[in-house]
Amino acid sequence: MTRSDAAQSFEEAMAEVVAKVEEAIDRFLPRTDGPEGQLFEAMRYAVFSGGKRFRPFLVCESARLFGVGSQSALRAAVAIECVHIYSLIHDDLPCMDDDDLRHGQPTVHRKFDEATAVLAGDALLTLAFELLSGVDTHEDARVRLDLVRRLAEAAGGHGMVGGQTIDLASEGVTLDIGSITRLQRLKTGALIAFACEAGGVLGHASPEALHALHAYAHDLGLAYQIADDLLDAEGDAELMGKAARKDAEAGKATFVSILGLDRARDQARLLSDQAIQHLDLFDEKADLLREAARFVINRRN
Amino acid sequence: MTRSDAAQSFEEAMAEVVAKVEEAIDRFLPRTDGPEGQLFEAMRYAVFSGGKRFRPFLVCESARLFGVGSQSALRAAVAIECVHIYSLIHDDLPCMDDDDLRHGQPTVHRKFDEATAVLAGDALLTLAFELLSGVDTHEDARVRLDLVRRLAEAAGGHGMVGGQTIDLASEGVTLDIGSITRLQRLKTGALIAFACEAGGVLGHASPEALHALHAYAHDLGLAYQIADDLLDAEGDAELMGKAARKDAEAGKATFVSILGLDRARDQARLLSDQAIQHLDLFDEKADLLREAARFVINRRN
Repeated sequence: MTRSDAAQSFEEAMAEVVAKVEEAIDRFLPRTDGPEGQLFEAMRYAVFSGGKRFRPFLVCESARLFGVGSQSALRAAVAIECVHIYSLIHDDLPCMDDDDLRHGQPTVHRKFDEATAVLAGDALLTLAFELLSGVDTHEDARVRLDLVRRLAEAAGGHGMVGGQTIDLASEGVTLDIGSITRLQRLKTGALIAFACEAGGVLGHASPEALHALHAYAHDLGLAYQIADDLLDAEGDAELMGKAARKDAEAGKATFVSILGLDRARDQARLLSDQAIQHLDLFDEKADLLREAARFVINRRN
Repeated sequence: MTRSDAAQSFEEAMAEVVAKVEEAIDRFLPRTDGPEGQLFEAMRYAVFSGGKRFRPFLVCESARLFGVGSQSALRAAVAIECVHIYSLIHDDLPCMDDDDLRHGQPTVHRKFDEATAVLAGDALLTLAFELLSGVDTHEDARVRLDLVRRLAEAAGGHGMVGGQTIDLASEGVTLDIGSITRLQRLKTGALIAFACEAGGVLGHASPEALHALHAYAHDLGLAYQIADDLLDAEGDAELMGKAARKDAEAGKATFVSILGLDRARDQARLLSDQAIQHLDLFDEKADLLREAARFVINRRN
């Protein structure tokens, strides 16, 4: 397969995941009549207003390595997407990053109101755990419980929420490269790592295979974040669907502010290559994951 | 046992639960160094700034009916308390009920800031699921998974968060008794029901016993809420540790605004009696739960 063939099949695979995941979200998060209907409308607005579905893609592809059924993978994929979307809703709040746009659409607190945004985030986080523990799956209880525990660890105070706390506390503070790496490992890396491991957990992967997926995810997550910082520094607000150069304006240290554009680009490429090497023990079934590592540093939004 | 003996042993049992639960929280939610330390400080501030620990008490007492070990019960008790405290932190936010005081102390967003309050709530909700799925418990995976699923259902959009959504949407709206009963069943009843059922789930209770606990919790929860409305209408802000008469000022329908003081008091007593009758299939081990049903309508704060 040539590079451009690979890129094309990656794009096709991504589009396929997006379609499947959105169908699954529609199933797991139906409209609700009654006075709490607005909450579900806000939850659906948030999850359906765009997004690359990159984390669900990682779940589905890592699950495919071990022959996991697509319905099981999709349930976990939707759960992780719910956690990702909840984190965006809360991050966008006036008391946090105070963003008006996300994927070119009004953020949830702008479209609805702040209270609804807080509650929609809360409900999506809770729904994630409901989905992982759901009764209509074929996995045994130990596997599902393992997913619950890993998600809680990745999303909580020692994971994503911890990272967000550090991020908010870092405005106007000069971070070194070690601190910002740790910050991003928590804020975005932990959930990406869980997405990659989830397929392995569902597939009863060996400790070696799980370790390889974790190492892949770790490098992938950092490469993704550096690419994000590059896009924010160089990016086009229209293409990105959200305000660009927010980090510099907020006085936030980023990989770009510390390393400069050129070294940041080199570092992203290095991490992408390293991520791909961690997949050496998998055969061609991992090709889309390999392509994903190239995708994250080449994307334009 | 006379009534006043019973009341006294109830108070002693409550005090014992408070001590054990607070010791357990200290263990499950330790201080953390590092830049995310403020998040954990805010979480600990919220959970240690008072509260009756009524839900943990229900977990421990329902677990005792089935001979469940106290460490297992305490883990579930702390998980439920984390969910309760998270809901208070978010409810107190300026965009929600905008409260400055809770248990006579500044609310989390007043003591810290709004962003920290949002994140501390998020982290406590996540911690609850981490605790329930924790590896160092003796229960089998199916039992723990059942707890995770039930908690997610009780806390999510079709439970507590759904109830809070309806509550916010009801300001200035005239609710009938059916609507307000449903609202409260979701907003406070679902978590109280889970607290009572959790002990039964841990103790592999029969469907009949679980059903009895659920019915008990249902009536207890409503009695609790009516008593809350009575306290708000009649209450003394100093005793309550929070502003009184907030509901009337906010134009919120309550059981008192719909039924009037006398009928609300009668209704609370009726529900308390009914709750106690649901415990008929349990022996004297359920006496403290019986006493709890009396306590909720007689408390002064």
